[in-house]
Amino acid sequence: MNAPVCPLPATEEGVIERGHGGGGALTGRLVAELFRPCFGASPDEPLHDGATLAVGGSRLAFTTDSFVVTPLEFPGGDIGALAVIGTVNDLAMCGAKPLSLSAGFILEEGLDITRLRRIAASMGQAAATAGVRVVTGDTKVVERGKGDGIYITTAGVGLIPPGVTIGPQCVRPGDAVLLSGDVGRHGIAIMAAREGLGFETEIVSDLASLAPAVAGLIAAGVTLHCLRDLTRGGLASALVEIATGAGVELRLDAAAVPVGEAVRGACEILGLDPWYVANEGRLVAFVPEPEAARALAILRSHPGGAEAAVIGRVAAASGRGRVLVETIGGVRVLDLLSGEQLPRIC
Amino acid sequence: MNAPVCPLPATEEGVIERGHGGGGALTGRLVAELFRPCFGASPDEPLHDGATLAVGGSRLAFTTDSFVVTPLEFPGGDIGALAVIGTVNDLAMCGAKPLSLSAGFILEEGLDITRLRRIAASMGQAAATAGVRVVTGDTKVVERGKGDGIYITTAGVGLIPPGVTIGPQCVRPGDAVLLSGDVGRHGIAIMAAREGLGFETEIVSDLASLAPAVAGLIAAGVTLHCLRDLTRGGLASALVEIATGAGVELRLDAAAVPVGEAVRGACEILGLDPWYVANEGRLVAFVPEPEAARALAILRSHPGGAEAAVIGRVAAASGRGRVLVETIGGVRVLDLLSGEQLPRIC
Repeated sequence: MNAPVCPLPATEEGVIERGHGGGGALTGRLVAELFRPCFGASPDEPLHDGATLAVGGSRLAFTTDSFVVTPLEFPGGDIGALAVIGTVNDLAMCGAKPLSLSAGFILEEGLDITRLRRIAASMGQAAATAGVRVVTGDTKVVERGKGDGIYITTAGVGLIPPGVTIGPQCVRPGDAVLLSGDVGRHGIAIMAAREGLGFETEIVSDLASLAPAVAGLIAAGVTLHCLRDLTRGGLASALVEIATGAGVELRLDAAAVPVGEAVRGACEILGLDPWYVANEGRLVAFVPEPEAARALAILRSHPGGAEAAVIGRVAAASGRGRVLVETIGGVRVLDLLSGEQLPRIC
Repeated sequence: MNAPVCPLPATEEGVIERGHGGGGALTGRLVAELFRPCFGASPDEPLHDGATLAVGGSRLAFTTDSFVVTPLEFPGGDIGALAVIGTVNDLAMCGAKPLSLSAGFILEEGLDITRLRRIAASMGQAAATAGVRVVTGDTKVVERGKGDGIYITTAGVGLIPPGVTIGPQCVRPGDAVLLSGDVGRHGIAIMAAREGLGFETEIVSDLASLAPAVAGLIAAGVTLHCLRDLTRGGLASALVEIATGAGVELRLDAAAVPVGEAVRGACEILGLDPWYVANEGRLVAFVPEPEAARALAILRSHPGGAEAAVIGRVAAASGRGRVLVETIGGVRVLDLLSGEQLPRIC
């Protein structure tokens, strides 16, 4: 294997800003211009939530995520459950059945061990519910002021069923775009907990494993062209990335995207767009139009899926790809945010 | 799958100390009493550097490590190369051929991007040299004062050849204990770089992939009972853990353990025992005595292996396991350190 070519630029490149971790355009540039060339990825390899490995006659999905959410515990979950379910969901987005997880802990000196135990127990519980186990791990400790309680990095391995190939490159004109539920709850729940905001109704994170819904779609024989969970950057960023990656034009019906009353109210107060707010239990699925009704019924049959909806379609293949949103007022183009609306929500 | 039982204790458990990340007795207790029960590991499952997964007809090794070394760059390497080689070596200790790595980055706001590029390039180079690729990753950014430049968590997947089973449970009375080279260089190189200590001879980390040496041993048909790389806690902690895990008594010849002149001198000045200082390119191998000479010749034929030596043998199976060191002055028992001699060396 030849060493990858990663020339060092002659000019000053600046410093890391919070937005580099936001899952938007800055993160995308860091990945495309720094990490991918350094790691020897070819420029036309698809960007996806996980990598695929061929082992013997099997195909494995392999993925990782680091979690730095603050506060460590929030309505609907904690950093431990989030670290397990986030990686389980990334595997599910490859169509894979999650097999095993690893967990690397970076603990800050002075962390209350009872709190660590509570979070580890929550990880074990989340893993058992998702049908996986944390099978290997590592623990490091950093001095006070060099961390923030607990950071967790999970990686996961899953088994991709024969015949399943999912990714932006599989998206086709005519595909229906399905959304599995209302958007914006996770990010707003974190913000409210962090800032001590009291809304009339407590907003609870949508944190949940998407693996059962994906397994249900696959078992029913639905043709899944692309799946994406709507984490950092929310619904809007996921759709822009897919449209760009696939080189297609998406047309969305704004009125079809469910946003809860409480989330809508909180977003108005905070000046946020719920389409860009992170979720941890929502996905979009691209399926051939004739299969859309059947896929929708399956999504609705899963917990949290009552509000699943067809929100748009793939209009045409064009070179560069874009997302058009049809509203009562007209048509607007969706953009990636440069940085992030909400820091450290996952 | 039933949820694991992880009862919350009624009493105050104290706080995380630096020693919990030292790879010694405190780390061991945290893993045995907190993480393993929470993650549903059975108490008699062997503790090892990686987990084994059965996929189709293949066996995979799966492992993870978090890296928080300071300084980020040091003589002989940097946090990027360390993160790649550390995980490659953990896979090799399972007898596995490394296939793919993941990398999760936790970056501190204000980090110089040119420095990040240099470290990512070093990761790519280390991976290419080890014959693997970083195939998936994630980036998070934390505010100034909530990190320390760069933390990296790598996970790795490797393929275990048929017939290879390596672990403390395979150790047998009569086995020879082989050491692949001189000990103590990595920890002392880090300390010298961090504290600005100028020794007469610059001490360079031993950071290197152990995968070629392990592949060489397997290809030659050497029966490998147990392998362990000598990272946090060094040679002494690794041997005590193996003896305890296997329930055997080890007898070591102190004079047979190579320690370089410069490392010995630095350890005397710093009041450290080189047997407890971390290495990043050294292993111990337990093999049946009749195969020891052949195994030694193979270890010596690999880069960095010129000083490989047989340092002891497995004397007897006893219930609790211990390590006895024979010196000119008599026999002493090796213990685990409670915390760590050197913080944040990996």
